[in-house]
Amino acid sequence: MRWINWLFAAMRTYGGGILEMPDLMDTRRAFLAHCQANLAALRREGRYREFAHLEKLSGRFPLYRWHRPDGVREVTVWSSNDYLGMGAHPQVLAAAARAVEEHGAGAGGTRNISGTSPLHVALEAELASLHGKPAALLFGSGYIANQAGIAAVLEALPGFIVFSDAKNHASMIAGMRGAKGAGRVIWRHNDLQDLEAKLAAAPSGAPKLIAFESVYSMDGDIAPIGAICDLAERYGAMTYLDEVHAVGLYGATGGGISERDGVAHRVDLIEGTLAKGFGVFGGYIAGDADMVDYIRSTAGGLIFTTSLPPAVAAAALESVRVLKRLPERRVALAERAAALKSALDAAGLPRLDGPSHIVPVWVGEAELCRQVARRLLEDHAIYATPINYPTVPRGTERLRLCATPFHTDAMIAALVTALQAVLPTAAIRQAAE
Amino acid sequence: MRWINWLFAAMRTYGGGILEMPDLMDTRRAFLAHCQANLAALRREGRYREFAHLEKLSGRFPLYRWHRPDGVREVTVWSSNDYLGMGAHPQVLAAAARAVEEHGAGAGGTRNISGTSPLHVALEAELASLHGKPAALLFGSGYIANQAGIAAVLEALPGFIVFSDAKNHASMIAGMRGAKGAGRVIWRHNDLQDLEAKLAAAPSGAPKLIAFESVYSMDGDIAPIGAICDLAERYGAMTYLDEVHAVGLYGATGGGISERDGVAHRVDLIEGTLAKGFGVFGGYIAGDADMVDYIRSTAGGLIFTTSLPPAVAAAALESVRVLKRLPERRVALAERAAALKSALDAAGLPRLDGPSHIVPVWVGEAELCRQVARRLLEDHAIYATPINYPTVPRGTERLRLCATPFHTDAMIAALVTALQAVLPTAAIRQAAE
Repeated sequence: MRWINWLFAAMRTYGGGILEMPDLMDTRRAFLAHCQANLAALRREGRYREFAHLEKLSGRFPLYRWHRPDGVREVTVWSSNDYLGMGAHPQVLAAAARAVEEHGAGAGGTRNISGTSPLHVALEAELASLHGKPAALLFGSGYIANQAGIAAVLEALPGFIVFSDAKNHASMIAGMRGAKGAGRVIWRHNDLQDLEAKLAAAPSGAPKLIAFESVYSMDGDIAPIGAICDLAERYGAMTYLDEVHAVGLYGATGGGISERDGVAHRVDLIEGTLAKGFGVFGGYIAGDADMVDYIRSTAGGLIFTTSLPPAVAAAALESVRVLKRLPERRVALAERAAALKSALDAAGLPRLDGPSHIVPVWVGEAELCRQVARRLLEDHAIYATPINYPTVPRGTERLRLCATPFHTDAMIAALVTALQAVLPTAAIRQAAE
Repeated sequence: MRWINWLFAAMRTYGGGILEMPDLMDTRRAFLAHCQANLAALRREGRYREFAHLEKLSGRFPLYRWHRPDGVREVTVWSSNDYLGMGAHPQVLAAAARAVEEHGAGAGGTRNISGTSPLHVALEAELASLHGKPAALLFGSGYIANQAGIAAVLEALPGFIVFSDAKNHASMIAGMRGAKGAGRVIWRHNDLQDLEAKLAAAPSGAPKLIAFESVYSMDGDIAPIGAICDLAERYGAMTYLDEVHAVGLYGATGGGISERDGVAHRVDLIEGTLAKGFGVFGGYIAGDADMVDYIRSTAGGLIFTTSLPPAVAAAALESVRVLKRLPERRVALAERAAALKSALDAAGLPRLDGPSHIVPVWVGEAELCRQVARRLLEDHAIYATPINYPTVPRGTERLRLCATPFHTDAMIAALVTALQAVLPTAAIRQAAE
């Protein structure tokens, strides 16, 4: 605030009366001009985002109705994060409908102000159990869980240093940036040597947090969680793991990559979402009971916001429980992802290779990416989101595809044919080089 | 980051090998100790929050089932923010149930990644219309709308100064704090003279935003919106108005205090919630089309998070539409709030006076406040949330009561009797002095 006082004082020395204000800033006009210039630049760069109006059809996933001004058309969606189609699972829908009827539409308050129902409590217990942790805490979203959770940890001890994987999600970065007084060291994506070098270079007496993801959303690669925990132990660091693209999908009961790799007990805080693999809405953090209770008691993003609707909690609870005992859906996901990759490779289409269910198809330029997606939708009734900056670095624009257990061989074949038609040969050749 | 480099350099001069690390910080242990100490302090101060497990009963609002380890008991809730009982309105529930059946449990993606349904689009149009603005934008919550929206505005122009009412909500403060490079000037709550003095003292050439609320949640008082807009015009400032405790409740069609006062067109950005008067979940911002489009295109809290579930959008849409044509519910709310205030006054119970539906009953001490609420619940089957720091300043602890159209005369009488029994005479006398 000191510079403001200085500016105010400097202003006062001019002795100008208020009523004159010769240089009065018209903030509205200036802000509007900024907005318009910025939007024009986005359009010029091909980065202006037009949200397609897509109507989910619960009985027909992954078919959606695409609404245009001139009509409605059925399209196949290849970019849903409802990775397992649980958003349309009959038991999940039944749980939601029952909760709406019994408990109404909204929670009516924050967790502390009449917004904690037995459903919220049961869901937290279920999520704690899913990760083998003593406690879990719901948030309005995975974004908020990361932002509020990471900030709460980093602000707890003076001099905290967070070691952040270079490809961490925007919500984790928001939490790190929002933490007053914490330092941030970025290590090269999934690079253990770089992480160790940076841990070793830091003061051994400083509190440390290693923050990373299991499955990275835009590349589809997977972190070596166990090896990162080894380093955390060697250097006295805590670990914070974002499993949003893995919960429900990996591990014997859907506990994510940390369950699959048998290392969940070594991770201090596991963050997840109910909105992707579980097909509903909301986020959470699981961990030690006192740690979770501390975050519950201090995180503004939890204290000052309305609790998830009872029907959301009920649907998520049912989804977690159903998926725990539904490994065949995880098997089907892996099989379909492999089929998609094989088909793309057989057709010579450029994709980023990775071991997960996320299959990025390379384009490499924002405006081209937008056009390719547009043609897929308009000419081939296929929806695949163009991913551009700030979600990925400029020059790495891509289509992000996710096969689900409900994408058929025919859908894969139609996708391949369409991609061959709309991806410029130059882009394919360039990617191959 | 400079201090970290300095620390790293200082560390290196010790020449200690990594394997020795005599002063290695065990971060997990240190963080856990901090958590435990903090939780112990909260308990000592009577500020440790135990969430009551309250089951909303959609047909019987404001009666809830209170779940305890030893059983279930029916209680009357006096602290719900479902101010109009819309969370149990049959048409709202029908819209939610229908959307669950047709569209499933979750949206399955961010707004940009297949998560924009016709329901989201229709809801945004309805909210824009509610406030007489060209555009509106949904967020996952009012908290996020404030945090992301305010930060997006303040980061748009260099040297932005935000003039923030001293009692602004934590989510607005989060947005201001999160905005890199913006200055913040706090003006005395609802004090036009202080606001003007501070606007006048600031450099006239700096961009300015006046950020304030209409109905303040914890005191229940109301801002002079028109007079604040006068000042904004005189000093070239933009205005950002949080109407979360007013939308649905005030104005001819539920557009809030800005509609009631006929000044909505003078406010640049109006922020509201779907989780209180509308009884569902989610938040939004309404304003100029380019401003809203700019926020849509830049706000991380929107871009990187899953869209609201279709059923939430459907229920909120129905609620906004129903409430537009249901002034009798607003009339009933005002009548019930007046009845509650009269009854408290007739019984000599200490309340903060205010013109809104929010009726704070004074306690003034955290542990006492907790005990009073506990006795109300256990001995009188009445739930009223104890409000303490950080939600309100220390020494101003209170019970926050909200009559709804569904609180009967008998419920008011029972509440008064119970408060007379559990509020210590000393507290009542002190408040009267």
